[in-house]
Amino acid sequence: MVEKKISSAVIKRLPRYFRYLRDLLDQGVNRISSEELSRLMHATASQVRQDLNNFGGFGQQGYGYNVEYLKDEIAKILGLDTPHNMIMVGAGNLGRAIAGYDKFDNRSFHIKGIFDSNPDVVGQEVRGIRIMPMDEIESFIRENNISIVGLTVPKDQGRPVAEMLYGYGIRAFWNFAHVDLSLPEDAHVENVHLSDSLMQLSYRLKNNL
Amino acid sequence: MVEKKISSAVIKRLPRYFRYLRDLLDQGVNRISSEELSRLMHATASQVRQDLNNFGGFGQQGYGYNVEYLKDEIAKILGLDTPHNMIMVGAGNLGRAIAGYDKFDNRSFHIKGIFDSNPDVVGQEVRGIRIMPMDEIESFIRENNISIVGLTVPKDQGRPVAEMLYGYGIRAFWNFAHVDLSLPEDAHVENVHLSDSLMQLSYRLKNNL
Repeated sequence: MVEKKISSAVIKRLPRYFRYLRDLLDQGVNRISSEELSRLMHATASQVRQDLNNFGGFGQQGYGYNVEYLKDEIAKILGLDTPHNMIMVGAGNLGRAIAGYDKFDNRSFHIKGIFDSNPDVVGQEVRGIRIMPMDEIESFIRENNISIVGLTVPKDQGRPVAEMLYGYGIRAFWNFAHVDLSLPEDAHVENVHLSDSLMQLSYRLKNNL
Repeated sequence: MVEKKISSAVIKRLPRYFRYLRDLLDQGVNRISSEELSRLMHATASQVRQDLNNFGGFGQQGYGYNVEYLKDEIAKILGLDTPHNMIMVGAGNLGRAIAGYDKFDNRSFHIKGIFDSNPDVVGQEVRGIRIMPMDEIESFIRENNISIVGLTVPKDQGRPVAEMLYGYGIRAFWNFAHVDLSLPEDAHVENVHLSDSLMQLSYRLKNNL
Protein backbone atom coordinates (compact mmCIF):
# COMPACT_ATOMS: atom_id res chain seq x y z
CA MET A 1 0.00 0.00 0.00
CA VAL A 2 2.82 2.40 0.76
CA GLU A 3 3.99 4.06 -2.42
CA LYS A 4 7.61 4.86 -3.05
CA LYS A 5 8.93 8.17 -4.38
CA ILE A 6 7.24 10.24 -1.74
CA SER A 7 8.92 13.63 -1.49
CA SER A 8 11.10 14.26 1.53
CA ALA A 9 8.96 17.30 2.36
CA VAL A 10 5.94 15.03 2.81
CA ILE A 11 7.97 12.61 4.89
CA LYS A 12 9.05 15.48 7.13
CA ARG A 13 5.42 16.41 7.69
CA LEU A 14 4.26 12.87 8.52
CA PRO A 15 5.53 12.88 12.11
CA ARG A 16 3.64 16.14 12.63
CA TYR A 17 0.42 14.58 11.31
CA PHE A 18 1.03 11.70 13.65
CA ARG A 19 1.56 14.01 16.63
CA TYR A 20 -1.56 16.08 15.89
CA LEU A 21 -3.74 13.04 15.32
CA ARG A 22 -2.56 11.43 18.53
CA ASP A 23 -3.30 14.66 20.42
CA LEU A 24 -6.76 14.84 18.86
CA LEU A 25 -7.44 11.27 19.89
CA ASP A 26 -6.26 12.05 23.43
CA GLN A 27 -8.79 14.89 23.44
CA GLY A 28 -11.54 12.50 22.39
CA VAL A 29 -11.83 13.77 18.81
CA ASN A 30 -12.72 10.86 16.53
CA ARG A 31 -13.38 12.56 13.23
CA ILE A 32 -11.82 15.53 11.49
CA SER A 33 -12.28 17.31 8.17
CA SER A 34 -9.31 18.14 5.98
CA GLU A 35 -10.13 21.82 6.66
CA GLU A 36 -9.79 21.38 10.42
CA LEU A 37 -6.71 19.23 10.09
CA SER A 38 -5.11 21.80 7.78
CA ARG A 39 -5.79 24.58 10.27
CA LEU A 40 -3.96 22.60 12.93
CA MET A 41 -1.09 21.84 10.57
CA HIS A 42 -0.83 25.46 9.36
CA ALA A 43 -1.29 24.19 5.79
CA THR A 44 -4.00 24.48 3.17
CA ALA A 45 -6.75 21.87 3.00
CA SER A 46 -5.65 20.90 -0.48
CA GLN A 47 -2.10 20.43 0.80
CA VAL A 48 -3.39 18.07 3.48
CA ARG A 49 -5.51 16.13 0.98
CA GLN A 50 -2.54 15.93 -1.37
CA ASP A 51 -0.21 14.75 1.39
CA LEU A 52 -2.57 12.03 2.51
CA ASN A 53 -3.36 10.97 -1.03
CA ASN A 54 0.27 9.90 -1.27
CA PHE A 55 -0.66 7.09 1.04
CA GLY A 56 -3.90 6.06 -0.51
CA GLY A 57 -6.20 8.71 0.90
CA PHE A 58 -8.07 7.41 3.97
CA GLY A 59 -10.57 10.28 3.69
CA GLN A 60 -14.24 9.95 2.87
CA GLN A 61 -16.19 12.59 1.01
CA GLY A 62 -18.52 14.43 3.40
CA TYR A 63 -17.21 12.60 6.44
CA GLY A 64 -13.60 13.63 6.64
CA TYR A 65 -11.02 11.46 8.30
CA ASN A 66 -11.40 8.92 11.04
CA VAL A 67 -8.72 10.13 13.45
CA GLU A 68 -7.78 6.78 14.93
CA TYR A 69 -7.67 5.01 11.59
CA LEU A 70 -5.59 7.78 10.02
CA LYS A 71 -3.21 7.87 12.99
CA ASP A 72 -2.77 4.09 12.81
CA GLU A 73 -2.16 4.16 9.07
CA ILE A 74 0.44 6.92 9.43
CA ALA A 75 2.03 4.95 12.25
CA LYS A 76 2.33 1.97 9.89
CA ILE A 77 3.85 4.14 7.18
CA LEU A 78 6.37 5.50 9.66
CA GLY A 79 7.18 2.00 10.82
CA LEU A 80 5.83 2.67 14.31
CA ASP A 81 3.63 -0.43 14.27
CA THR A 82 6.62 -2.61 15.06
CA PRO A 83 8.87 -1.93 18.03
CA HIS A 84 12.40 -0.66 17.44
CA ASN A 85 15.05 -1.65 19.90
CA MET A 86 17.67 1.04 20.34
CA ILE A 87 20.87 1.71 22.19
CA MET A 88 22.54 5.01 22.99
CA VAL A 89 26.30 5.22 22.58
CA GLY A 90 27.80 7.95 24.73
CA ALA A 91 26.57 8.42 28.31
CA GLY A 92 27.36 12.11 28.63
CA ASN A 93 24.70 14.65 29.62
CA LEU A 94 22.92 14.53 26.28
CA GLY A 95 22.97 10.73 25.99
CA ARG A 96 21.57 10.42 29.50
CA ALA A 97 18.93 13.08 28.87
CA ILE A 98 17.70 11.25 25.80
CA ALA A 99 17.80 7.84 27.45
CA GLY A 100 15.95 9.35 30.39
CA TYR A 101 13.09 10.55 28.26
CA ASP A 102 10.30 8.01 28.60
CA LYS A 103 8.04 9.30 25.84
CA PHE A 104 9.91 7.56 23.02
CA ASP A 105 8.55 4.28 24.37
CA ASN A 106 5.02 5.38 23.43
CA ARG A 107 6.17 5.71 19.87
CA SER A 108 7.63 2.21 19.94
CA PHE A 109 11.28 3.24 20.29
CA HIS A 110 12.73 1.28 23.16
CA ILE A 111 16.14 2.20 24.51
CA LYS A 112 17.58 -1.05 25.79
CA GLY A 113 21.06 -0.03 26.80
CA ILE A 114 23.63 2.75 26.98
CA PHE A 115 27.28 2.25 26.17
CA ASP A 116 30.29 4.31 27.14
CA SER A 117 34.03 3.90 27.05
CA ASN A 118 34.52 5.58 30.42
CA PRO A 119 34.81 2.88 33.14
CA ASP A 120 33.72 5.42 35.77
CA VAL A 121 30.18 5.58 34.42
CA VAL A 122 29.80 1.92 33.47
CA GLY A 123 27.38 0.21 35.84
CA GLN A 124 25.34 3.37 36.47
CA GLU A 125 21.71 3.42 35.40
CA VAL A 126 19.43 5.94 33.70
CA ARG A 127 15.71 5.24 34.08
CA GLY A 128 16.62 1.63 34.81
CA ILE A 129 18.74 1.37 31.66
CA ARG A 130 22.24 0.11 32.38
CA ILE A 131 25.40 1.83 31.17
CA MET A 132 27.68 -0.86 29.76
CA PRO A 133 31.27 -0.99 28.49
CA MET A 134 32.00 -0.79 24.76
CA ASP A 135 33.39 -4.31 24.58
CA GLU A 136 29.92 -5.70 25.28
CA ILE A 137 28.25 -3.74 22.50
CA GLU A 138 28.55 -6.29 19.69
CA SER A 139 26.97 -9.16 21.59
CA PHE A 140 24.33 -6.83 23.05
CA ILE A 141 23.31 -5.68 19.57
CA ARG A 142 22.92 -9.24 18.34
CA GLU A 143 21.17 -10.57 21.43
CA ASN A 144 18.71 -7.69 21.73
CA ASN A 145 17.83 -7.22 18.09
CA ILE A 146 18.99 -3.60 18.10
CA SER A 147 18.06 -1.74 14.91
CA ILE A 148 18.72 1.93 15.77
CA VAL A 149 21.66 3.58 17.49
CA GLY A 150 21.61 7.05 19.03
CA LEU A 151 25.13 8.48 18.80
CA THR A 152 25.93 10.95 21.55
CA VAL A 153 29.69 10.55 21.51
CA PRO A 154 32.23 13.37 21.22
CA LYS A 155 32.88 14.65 17.72
CA ASP A 156 36.17 12.82 17.14
CA GLN A 157 34.58 9.48 18.03
CA GLY A 158 31.55 9.89 15.76
CA ARG A 159 32.97 8.34 12.62
CA PRO A 160 34.99 5.43 14.06
CA VAL A 161 32.15 4.42 16.37
CA ALA A 162 29.59 4.62 13.55
CA GLU A 163 31.80 2.51 11.29
CA MET A 164 32.27 -0.09 14.01
CA LEU A 165 28.50 -0.25 14.57
CA TYR A 166 27.87 -0.52 10.84
CA GLY A 167 30.16 -3.55 10.92
CA TYR A 168 27.94 -5.03 13.62
CA GLY A 169 24.94 -4.71 11.33
CA ILE A 170 23.44 -1.37 12.42
CA ARG A 171 21.84 0.52 9.53
CA ALA A 172 20.02 3.37 11.31
CA PHE A 173 21.98 6.10 13.04
CA TRP A 174 20.43 8.94 15.02
CA ASN A 175 23.49 11.12 15.06
CA PHE A 176 24.04 13.86 17.65
CA ALA A 177 27.84 13.88 17.29
CA HIS A 178 28.99 17.15 15.70
CA VAL A 179 30.36 15.45 12.64
CA ASP A 180 28.86 14.18 9.40
CA LEU A 181 29.17 10.43 9.24
CA SER A 182 30.66 8.74 6.24
CA LEU A 183 28.95 5.39 5.85
CA PRO A 184 28.00 3.06 2.98
CA GLU A 185 24.87 3.87 1.01
CA ASP A 186 22.60 1.44 2.81
CA ALA A 187 23.09 3.23 6.14
CA HIS A 188 20.36 5.66 7.17
CA VAL A 189 21.56 8.69 9.09
CA GLU A 190 19.38 11.28 10.74
CA ASN A 191 21.50 14.13 12.01
CA VAL A 192 20.55 16.27 14.96
CA HIS A 193 23.28 18.90 14.88
CA LEU A 194 22.30 21.20 17.70
CA SER A 195 24.83 23.91 17.03
CA ASP A 196 23.89 23.96 13.33
CA SER A 197 20.29 24.66 14.24
CA LEU A 198 21.37 27.40 16.63
CA MET A 199 23.46 28.99 13.87
CA GLN A 200 20.48 28.90 11.51
CA LEU A 201 18.40 30.62 14.15
CA SER A 202 21.10 33.25 14.53
CA TYR A 203 21.13 33.76 10.76
CA ARG A 204 17.38 34.24 10.61
CA LEU A 205 17.42 36.58 13.59
CA LYS A 206 20.18 38.69 12.06
CA ASN A 207 18.55 38.87 8.64
CA ASN A 208 15.01 39.02 9.95
CA LEU A 209 13.89 36.06 7.84
CA MET B 1 27.36 42.64 1.53
CA VAL B 2 24.98 39.92 2.55
CA GLU B 3 22.38 39.39 -0.14
CA LYS B 4 18.80 38.59 0.66
CA LYS B 5 16.74 35.83 -1.00
CA ILE B 6 19.25 33.12 -0.30
CA SER B 7 17.57 29.74 -0.52
CA SER B 8 16.92 27.91 2.70
CA ALA B 9 18.94 24.96 1.37
CA VAL B 10 22.04 27.19 1.20
CA ILE B 11 21.35 28.54 4.66
CA LYS B 12 21.14 25.00 5.97
CA ARG B 13 24.55 24.25 4.50
CA LEU B 14 26.26 27.34 5.90
CA PRO B 15 26.73 25.98 9.43
CA ARG B 16 28.36 22.92 7.86
CA TYR B 17 30.77 25.10 5.88
CA PHE B 18 31.52 26.93 9.09
CA ARG B 19 32.19 23.68 10.96
CA TYR B 20 34.47 22.27 8.25
CA LEU B 21 36.41 25.49 7.88
CA ARG B 22 36.92 25.75 11.62
CA ASP B 23 38.15 22.15 11.71
CA LEU B 24 40.54 22.83 8.81
CA LEU B 25 41.90 25.85 10.62
CA ASP B 26 42.37 23.79 13.78
CA GLN B 27 44.37 21.34 11.65
CA GLY B 28 46.57 24.17 10.41
CA VAL B 29 45.11 24.27 6.89
CA ASN B 30 45.13 27.86 5.64
CA ARG B 31 44.12 27.50 2.03
CA ILE B 32 41.70 25.19 0.26
CA SER B 33 40.48 24.72 -3.31
CA SER B 34 36.79 24.44 -4.08
CA GLU B 35 37.51 20.84 -5.17
CA GLU B 36 38.91 19.90 -1.77
CA LEU B 37 36.20 21.78 0.09
CA SER B 38 33.54 20.07 -2.01
CA ARG B 39 35.00 16.65 -1.22
CA LEU B 40 34.72 17.40 2.48
CA MET B 41 31.18 18.70 2.07
CA HIS B 42 30.11 15.72 -0.08
CA ALA B 43 29.03 18.20 -2.75
CA THR B 44 30.24 19.08 -6.23
CA ALA B 45 32.85 21.81 -6.69
CA SER B 46 30.39 23.82 -8.75
CA GLN B 47 27.83 23.52 -5.93
CA VAL B 48 30.39 24.90 -3.47
CA ARG B 49 31.32 27.76 -5.80
CA GLN B 50 27.66 28.52 -6.35
CA ASP B 51 26.91 28.47 -2.62
CA LEU B 52 29.75 30.80 -1.79
CA ASN B 53 28.97 33.09 -4.72
CA ASN B 54 25.73 33.87 -2.92
CA PHE B 55 27.82 35.78 -0.45
CA GLY B 56 30.11 37.55 -2.84
CA GLY B 57 32.56 34.79 -3.61
CA PHE B 58 35.70 35.07 -1.46
CA GLY B 59 37.57 32.71 -3.80
CA GLN B 60 40.52 33.61 -5.99
CA GLN B 61 41.22 31.93 -9.31
CA GLY B 62 44.22 29.62 -9.02
CA TYR B 63 44.52 30.15 -5.30
CA GLY B 64 41.29 28.80 -3.88
CA TYR B 65 39.92 30.01 -0.60
CA ASN B 66 41.69 31.47 2.37
CA VAL B 67 40.26 29.27 5.12
CA GLU B 68 40.35 31.80 7.94
CA TYR B 69 38.93 34.61 5.84
CA LEU B 70 36.13 32.39 4.52
CA LYS B 71 35.34 31.09 8.00
CA ASP B 72 35.18 34.63 9.37
CA GLU B 73 32.96 35.80 6.53
CA ILE B 74 30.56 32.91 7.03
CA ALA B 75 30.59 33.63 10.75
CA LYS B 76 29.52 37.19 9.99
CA ILE B 77 26.77 35.99 7.67
CA LEU B 78 25.51 33.65 10.37
CA GLY B 79 25.60 36.44 12.92
CA LEU B 80 28.32 34.70 14.95
CA ASP B 81 30.53 37.79 15.01
CA THR B 82 28.41 39.30 17.77
CA PRO B 83 27.67 37.43 20.99
CA HIS B 84 24.15 36.13 21.64
CA ASN B 85 22.97 35.97 25.19
CA MET B 86 20.59 33.08 25.78
CA ILE B 87 18.52 31.53 28.50
CA MET B 88 17.10 28.04 28.75
CA VAL B 89 13.55 27.66 30.02
CA GLY B 90 12.93 24.24 31.52
CA ALA B 91 15.59 22.65 33.73
CA GLY B 92 14.74 19.02 33.06
CA ASN B 93 17.33 16.54 31.80
CA LEU B 94 17.42 17.97 28.29
CA GLY B 95 17.57 21.62 29.41
CA ARG B 96 20.40 20.79 31.78
CA ALA B 97 22.26 18.76 29.16
CA ILE B 98 22.14 21.66 26.72
CA ALA B 99 23.08 24.25 29.31
CA GLY B 100 25.92 21.97 30.39
CA TYR B 101 27.42 21.84 26.92
CA ASP B 102 30.27 24.34 26.87
CA LYS B 103 30.93 24.30 23.13
CA PHE B 104 28.15 26.74 22.25
CA ASP B 105 30.25 29.44 23.90
CA ASN B 106 32.90 29.05 21.17
CA ARG B 107 30.24 29.89 18.64
CA SER B 108 29.28 33.01 20.58
CA PHE B 109 26.10 31.60 22.13
CA HIS B 110 26.24 32.31 25.84
CA ILE B 111 23.73 30.68 28.12
CA LYS B 112 23.29 33.15 30.96
CA GLY B 113 20.56 31.53 33.00
CA ILE B 114 18.11 28.65 33.31
CA PHE B 115 14.53 29.08 34.45
CA ASP B 116 12.13 26.57 35.88
CA SER B 117 8.78 26.68 37.63
CA ASN B 118 9.73 23.88 40.04
CA PRO B 119 10.91 25.41 43.35
CA ASP B 120 12.84 22.21 44.14
CA VAL B 121 15.37 22.83 41.38
CA VAL B 122 15.60 26.63 41.73
CA GLY B 123 18.96 27.60 43.18
CA GLN B 124 20.79 24.63 41.67
CA GLU B 125 23.54 25.26 39.16
CA VAL B 126 24.59 23.69 35.85
CA ARG B 127 28.13 24.54 34.75
CA GLY B 128 27.94 27.57 37.03
CA ILE B 129 24.67 28.73 35.47
CA ARG B 130 21.99 29.36 38.06
CA ILE B 131 18.48 27.90 37.86
CA MET B 132 16.05 30.71 38.67
CA PRO B 133 12.31 30.97 39.28
CA MET B 134 9.98 32.02 36.48
CA ASP B 135 8.96 35.26 38.18
CA GLU B 136 12.48 36.61 37.69
CA ILE B 137 12.55 35.90 33.97
CA GLU B 138 11.25 39.22 32.67
CA SER B 139 13.75 41.37 34.54
CA PHE B 140 16.56 38.92 33.75
CA ILE B 141 15.83 39.15 30.03
CA ARG B 142 15.92 42.93 30.08
CA GLU B 143 18.98 43.25 32.31
CA ASN B 144 21.06 40.66 30.44
CA ASN B 145 20.17 41.59 26.89
CA ILE B 146 18.83 38.09 26.15
CA SER B 147 18.07 37.55 22.47
CA ILE B 148 17.54 33.78 22.18
CA VAL B 149 15.55 31.37 24.33
CA GLY B 150 15.97 27.60 24.37
CA LEU B 151 12.62 26.06 25.25
CA THR B 152 12.93 22.72 27.02
CA VAL B 153 9.60 22.78 28.79
CA PRO B 154 6.97 20.04 28.70
CA LYS B 155 4.74 20.02 25.66
CA ASP B 156 1.71 21.64 27.29
CA GLN B 157 3.78 24.59 28.49
CA GLY B 158 5.43 25.25 25.12
CA ARG B 159 2.89 27.67 23.72
CA PRO B 160 1.99 29.70 26.82
CA VAL B 161 5.65 30.08 27.81
CA ALA B 162 6.65 31.11 24.27
CA GLU B 163 3.84 33.68 24.13
CA MET B 164 4.86 35.11 27.49
CA LEU B 165 8.49 35.40 26.32
CA TYR B 166 7.41 37.00 23.08
CA GLY B 167 5.65 39.60 25.22
CA TYR B 168 8.98 40.23 26.98
CA GLY B 169 10.60 40.99 23.63
CA ILE B 170 12.14 37.62 22.70
CA ARG B 171 12.10 36.99 18.94
CA ALA B 172 14.28 33.88 18.59
CA PHE B 173 13.08 30.54 19.92
CA TRP B 174 15.08 27.35 19.88
CA ASN B 175 12.19 25.03 20.50
CA PHE B 176 12.62 21.54 21.94
CA ALA B 177 9.07 21.31 23.32
CA HIS B 178 7.06 18.72 21.39
CA VAL B 179 4.62 21.26 20.07
CA ASP B 180 4.60 23.69 17.18
CA LEU B 181 4.59 27.23 18.52
CA SER B 182 2.07 29.73 17.30
CA LEU B 183 3.70 33.15 17.39
CA PRO B 184 3.46 36.40 15.42
CA GLU B 185 5.30 36.61 12.10
CA ASP B 186 8.34 38.44 13.43
CA ALA B 187 9.24 35.56 15.75
CA HIS B 188 11.93 33.16 14.53
CA VAL B 189 11.45 29.56 15.58
CA GLU B 190 13.92 26.76 15.06
CA ASN B 191 12.34 23.46 16.05
CA VAL B 192 14.32 20.52 17.31
CA HIS B 193 11.63 17.86 17.53
CA LEU B 194 13.58 14.82 18.63
CA SER B 195 10.79 12.31 18.24
CA ASP B 196 9.97 13.64 14.75
CA SER B 197 13.52 12.98 13.65
CA LEU B 198 13.39 9.50 15.14
CA MET B 199 10.16 8.80 13.24
CA GLN B 200 11.76 9.95 9.99
CA LEU B 201 14.64 7.61 10.64
CA SER B 202 12.20 4.80 11.25
CA TYR B 203 10.43 5.62 7.98
CA ARG B 204 13.65 5.55 6.02
CA LEU B 205 14.76 2.33 7.66
CA LYS B 206 11.44 0.68 6.89
CA ASN B 207 11.35 1.83 3.28
CA ASN B 208 15.08 1.53 2.73
CA LEU B 209 15.38 5.12 1.52
